[in-house]
Amino acid sequence: MPIIYHHISAMRTALQTHRGQQRIALVPTMGNLHKGHLELVTLAKQHADIVIVSIFVNPTQFGEGEDFDSYPRTLDSDVAKLTSVDADYIFAPSIDEMYPVLPPPTCVLAGAIANQLCGQSRPGHFDGVGIVVSKLFNIIQPDLAVFGQKDYQQLAIIKQLVRDLSYPIEIIGAPIVRADDGLALSSRNQYLTNAERQIAPVLHQALQRLAQQLATGKLSQQRMQASLAETRRYLTDAGFTIDYLEIKTDQLGSITTAEGSNIVEKRFIILVAAWLGRARLLDNEFVTINKQF
Amino acid sequence: MPIIYHHISAMRTALQTHRGQQRIALVPTMGNLHKGHLELVTLAKQHADIVIVSIFVNPTQFGEGEDFDSYPRTLDSDVAKLTSVDADYIFAPSIDEMYPVLPPPTCVLAGAIANQLCGQSRPGHFDGVGIVVSKLFNIIQPDLAVFGQKDYQQLAIIKQLVRDLSYPIEIIGAPIVRADDGLALSSRNQYLTNAERQIAPVLHQALQRLAQQLATGKLSQQRMQASLAETRRYLTDAGFTIDYLEIKTDQLGSITTAEGSNIVEKRFIILVAAWLGRARLLDNEFVTINKQF
Repeated sequence: MPIIYHHISAMRTALQTHRGQQRIALVPTMGNLHKGHLELVTLAKQHADIVIVSIFVNPTQFGEGEDFDSYPRTLDSDVAKLTSVDADYIFAPSIDEMYPVLPPPTCVLAGAIANQLCGQSRPGHFDGVGIVVSKLFNIIQPDLAVFGQKDYQQLAIIKQLVRDLSYPIEIIGAPIVRADDGLALSSRNQYLTNAERQIAPVLHQALQRLAQQLATGKLSQQRMQASLAETRRYLTDAGFTIDYLEIKTDQLGSITTAEGSNIVEKRFIILVAAWLGRARLLDNEFVTINKQF
Repeated sequence: MPIIYHHISAMRTALQTHRGQQRIALVPTMGNLHKGHLELVTLAKQHADIVIVSIFVNPTQFGEGEDFDSYPRTLDSDVAKLTSVDADYIFAPSIDEMYPVLPPPTCVLAGAIANQLCGQSRPGHFDGVGIVVSKLFNIIQPDLAVFGQKDYQQLAIIKQLVRDLSYPIEIIGAPIVRADDGLALSSRNQYLTNAERQIAPVLHQALQRLAQQLATGKLSQQRMQASLAETRRYLTDAGFTIDYLEIKTDQLGSITTAEGSNIVEKRFIILVAAWLGRARLLDNEFVTINKQF
């Protein structure tokens, strides 16, 4: 069973016995763990000797009117699940422990990469991610940290943070874990009614179909936009309210168009956020252009 | 003689032999070292086993039209001086090594504390300090770091950074080192002509006189403002162009006034920045109200 620490100083003291001799991995979570989180731990175990899972529903990354208060907090069952995947430590601090001053005056901002996609619909969200991840990095001082690719923009922002602030931390992105019907696992899937849960897999199906359309033939800006528009219609008809559906480079830059209006990139990512009832669902899919064309 | 590293990876590797067994101190500098810097190293030596002095003229903390290009770079004589005080390592990276992308998109901002005093006359300056100090902290991962109290606002911002980002680093503020005539040592004193150098000590004399005036008797807001105005006139008459002369709490908050318009704080700091010719001089002085009143 993992050892649980609620205080920064105790967590640091516990890690002193490992530091320098064993590779330390951090898996940051907001708790309410599902199979996707457990895969992060399993992946961390493959790259490190000691795995710390942080469980902290971080207030600074929730906006006005978002689900901070209702976000499910399930520490006891989280501990049981983390025992099953052999996590070594759980760091579960209180809000006061993490933020003696709330909000903290110091800000860690990601710049342009955060002013799009989820950053546009959730102003301030990635500022909260920036500060809490910086704090966790400084508290745990891990050799590596594992983040899920479902939150692809978050992953890209954290990779940029590590580069720009010279953190000696390897960032590993873990593949999206899906239900049998293709729905990306997420704590927020609990907000779906049974009827919505039946519709939810359409999101991934639509992404897959779009990816297949885009992967073959010379891809013009025009054809890409037409496929995007069709997918948006398809999802809206299925009952989704689309927040965004966009195509970006793997570093979340804009797709570039060459002469003849063909897309330059041979590999890019489709990102979607869409509401279904009370749940805001995220998903993404990489596309590699079929080389024979 | 200290061992010099120009690359982050080599510096980190060298520190691995010490980490966990010896206390590591960082003294961040921009080089062109004077006795003030050497006192920082001596102080660091008293608190740590291993002292790393970083020498890096950080482009991101210089504004448009400031003295980045002309800032004196004197690595050879710096090394000789650091040998005399027994520094263990020098970390002297290139700009490319520190900033593969310049400016880095990620920002570390200090908030309100940085939007006053030097932050008002040097927009963006403390943003540059925030990022470079964060990087140095993450590269060296010291147990403690020593900063001079001459740059008092910088010191306060770094203490806030360490608190807000949970860096496990003790921050030590070192007393101002002065020339025999009272002028605070600074690399920028070199910009003074001989004639200006004769006038320069008036800055500290004026602060001392002001501090004495304020330290005795019940201090009203009115009397404080009158003393400040008189000091400004005195400095202007002596040839200074005042950037700011202000009184703040030790955490750089505003002085509070109680009923009867008396100042509540029993201890506060006078901060000044003033131009003399090409040199922008900083100084500060703490005032403790004489208890018998």
